[in-house]
Amino acid sequence: MSFRRVKAAVLLIGDELLSGRTQDVNLRAIAKFLAPLGVQLAEARVVSDTPDVIAEAVNALRGKYDYLFTTGGIGPTHDDKTADAVAAAFGVKIDVREDARQILEAHYLSRDGLNAARLRMARIPDGASLIANPVSRAPGFQLGNVFVLAGVPSIVRGMLEDVGHRIEGGAIVRTVTIRGKGLREGEIAASLEALELAAQSVTFGSYPWFDAAGVGVHLVARSPDPEALAKAREDLIALVRASGAEPEEIEDV
Amino acid sequence: MSFRRVKAAVLLIGDELLSGRTQDVNLRAIAKFLAPLGVQLAEARVVSDTPDVIAEAVNALRGKYDYLFTTGGIGPTHDDKTADAVAAAFGVKIDVREDARQILEAHYLSRDGLNAARLRMARIPDGASLIANPVSRAPGFQLGNVFVLAGVPSIVRGMLEDVGHRIEGGAIVRTVTIRGKGLREGEIAASLEALELAAQSVTFGSYPWFDAAGVGVHLVARSPDPEALAKAREDLIALVRASGAEPEEIEDV
Repeated sequence: MSFRRVKAAVLLIGDELLSGRTQDVNLRAIAKFLAPLGVQLAEARVVSDTPDVIAEAVNALRGKYDYLFTTGGIGPTHDDKTADAVAAAFGVKIDVREDARQILEAHYLSRDGLNAARLRMARIPDGASLIANPVSRAPGFQLGNVFVLAGVPSIVRGMLEDVGHRIEGGAIVRTVTIRGKGLREGEIAASLEALELAAQSVTFGSYPWFDAAGVGVHLVARSPDPEALAKAREDLIALVRASGAEPEEIEDV
Repeated sequence: MSFRRVKAAVLLIGDELLSGRTQDVNLRAIAKFLAPLGVQLAEARVVSDTPDVIAEAVNALRGKYDYLFTTGGIGPTHDDKTADAVAAAFGVKIDVREDARQILEAHYLSRDGLNAARLRMARIPDGASLIANPVSRAPGFQLGNVFVLAGVPSIVRGMLEDVGHRIEGGAIVRTVTIRGKGLREGEIAASLEALELAAQSVTFGSYPWFDAAGVGVHLVARSPDPEALAKAREDLIALVRASGAEPEEIEDV
């Protein structure tokens, strides 16, 4: 049985992510949003607010994967360079677009109006379709297989609501996590590798944890094949038990 | 006056980061560790536990920047592929090394011994120097300009203690952050861009915030030149005041 794999990349754009000022949380949110649609993240990059660098990364990633999601750099200030960089990457023109302008005009009507800076957020590359922003209105856009989203996490989550219906996913990779309290990775590595070698369509991961409750390992199996995953689950439970610990199945964290 | 810029990249390695299982915090920790040493992060990538993919990213990034830091994939299980991939990237051999083996042997003496899986953590590429691990002993290593660190955040922080003295930094880029409560980006974008255009060695960033206290903007100036940064600080304070808000200087968050 074969499973169609659909892969995506994420490009996180912003000096503040590289300076350490801002802790990114969008990568994880996008990964968790895509998984049930049958799309796996295969790579992510973080780049600065530099047009050439953004354009180069957009072209590298959109050619390599089925989808690319960018975050950040589409606001009204001079350091928001993503829309122009994406247009440059595709070799298309960019200008203020009427539908985007109307959205912003309506939004700022009740405030102090649509000035030149805010109008920057209506600059949309030729051929793109808008992505609705239910939080602060200024739209994102889709150009080819590239989805250009905001950087603010609540806006990213809002925009993803207008992205899901555009995605053609493949097989959905599901996950099982078995917790072994008191286990150490070095004790189960050989048995786990034997499982990995024997498995056709399952990948296994091992993640040690340390907290106030002690130490242990989370063993994770991932597969698009429900039957193979069910067997992997039984195998992991048996492995933990054979190592002298009580296995506990947990929700993926 | 010119300032020597030293740039680094980070390569975060692990399926768990791309599946959304794990929230990375190492990128930010490394950025904050490097900044006072005079090293700026210029790019980061996140890749899966796939040897070819890791090796390709290592070679792309170590050639492009002064330093490369990798996290993850140096534990005892089959999904820990970083050490071998880094050796492959450099075209050098890798094998169990005596000094690393002794560290592990001493550590596991009081437990249940050094088995084959744990011995994997003593595999060190030829020509590398060890990086001490004060948390769980299994060392990281430095090969050329590449620092190979663990994935567990507390271990990363511990290993960085043995990294700082190996870094030749350049000019230290310092940051000033001015908070303008009630301000919106669209109101200050033009004045901020004017500052950016006039500045020689300062970059400005604008970051909107929304929380229970309301809305506002954090305006950030970054520069290796203390005099230019002091002027930028005054300019940002004046800009916020001119927009009708009370400026507040805050510690970089």
